[in-house]
Amino acid sequence: MSEKNADAKKRFEQQIRFIVEIDKVKNIFRQTYLSDAKRKENDAEHSWHLALMAVLLQEHMKEKTDLTRVMTMVLIHDLVEIDAGDTYAYDTAGAATKKERETKAADRIFGLLPEDQGSSFRTLWEEFEEYRTADAKFAHLLDNFQPLLLNDASGGKSWAEHGVRKSQVCRRNEHIAETSQIVWEKMLEIMDSHIEKGNLKAD
Amino acid sequence: MSEKNADAKKRFEQQIRFIVEIDKVKNIFRQTYLSDAKRKENDAEHSWHLALMAVLLQEHMKEKTDLTRVMTMVLIHDLVEIDAGDTYAYDTAGAATKKERETKAADRIFGLLPEDQGSSFRTLWEEFEEYRTADAKFAHLLDNFQPLLLNDASGGKSWAEHGVRKSQVCRRNEHIAETSQIVWEKMLEIMDSHIEKGNLKAD
Repeated sequence: MSEKNADAKKRFEQQIRFIVEIDKVKNIFRQTYLSDAKRKENDAEHSWHLALMAVLLQEHMKEKTDLTRVMTMVLIHDLVEIDAGDTYAYDTAGAATKKERETKAADRIFGLLPEDQGSSFRTLWEEFEEYRTADAKFAHLLDNFQPLLLNDASGGKSWAEHGVRKSQVCRRNEHIAETSQIVWEKMLEIMDSHIEKGNLKAD
Repeated sequence: MSEKNADAKKRFEQQIRFIVEIDKVKNIFRQTYLSDAKRKENDAEHSWHLALMAVLLQEHMKEKTDLTRVMTMVLIHDLVEIDAGDTYAYDTAGAATKKERETKAADRIFGLLPEDQGSSFRTLWEEFEEYRTADAKFAHLLDNFQPLLLNDASGGKSWAEHGVRKSQVCRRNEHIAETSQIVWEKMLEIMDSHIEKGNLKAD
C-alpha cells in the first residue's frame, strides 16, 4: 500500500469510528413531542429537521448566511449530548453544569475524527454555542423555532406538562427578532394561541 | 402589508406546512437496526446520518461532487415514503409498485412548497432516483453504506432475520466500486466477516 493510500485508509477508519459512535444520538430524547404527540423526539430526528429547514428558510434571514456551514452546524450541534445528556430548555439546575459536561464530551467525540475534520466540527460547535455570527444566529433560530412548530402541532403538550410561561419562551428567544422578523411574529402567534388554549401560562 | 411582505408571508406559510408535514417521516421505520440492535431506525434518523457522512466522506469519492446538493438530496430522498412506505432493499414484490407509489407521493409532498422550492426538491429527488450524476452516485453510496455499518455494529441482525445472501448485497451495490474504491473494499470486508459469523449467506 502506498503512503497516500495508507493515510487515506487511516483517515477512513477514524471517520467510520466516529460515524458509528454518533449513532448513539438517536437514543437521546428531548422534551418535545412529535407532531402526532405520540412520543418524544430524539436528537438525530431533530437535527435532520433543522438541516432541511435551513435550506427552506434561509431566504427569511436578515443577514447573509452560508448554507453548507449552517447545515453542518445543526447536524452536529447536539452530538455532545451523547455524553452530556439533553438539558431541557427550562431546567435551571441542569444549565449550571451544562457547559462543563458538554466541553468534555466535545473533546472525546470530535477527538475521534482525523485532526482537521475534528477541529473543523469543534470550531463549528463552539461558534454555535457562542451565538454571535450570522450562521450561529440562523442555527439557533432553527433550533428554537422547530420545537415551537412541533409544540403547536402536538397541542402544546410539552409546555403544558412542564408548566412553561410565555416569559420563559420569550427570554429564550430574545434574539430571534434580530435574526428574522417573520419567524419571530410566527412564534408570538403560536405562543398567544396556546395561552388562549391554556397550554402556555400568560405569566 | 406591502406586496413583497404578503408574498414572503405566503411562501413562509407554505414552507411551514411542508416542515410540519415531513415530521411524519420520523415514524417510517426501516429494516436496519440501530448500532445497539435494540430497535429499528427511522427515515429521519437515517437521513441525518447520511448528511453528516457526506461531509466526512466526500474526500474519498472518485468524482467531484457538490456538498450542499448531496446533503439536501439525502435529507429529502426518503420523504416520498410518508405516503409510499418503506420498501425493503430485498423485497422484490414491493419493488414492482415502488416507482408508481413514490411518484404520486412526490407530487403531493413537494407540491406543498412554494413552486421554485418544490420543483428544486423534486428535481433533486428525481436525480437521486435516476442514479447517474456524480452527486446521485455519492448519495446512493451513502444510502447503501450506512446500513452496512449499522448491520455490522448490530451483529448482522437484519441480514440474519431476512436470510440475505452476499450476491444480493453485491447486486444492490454494483456501482459502489466506480464511486469509491475504499468504501467498496470496506463493504466487502464487512460482508465477508458476517459470512464467517453466519449472519449473511455465502450463496
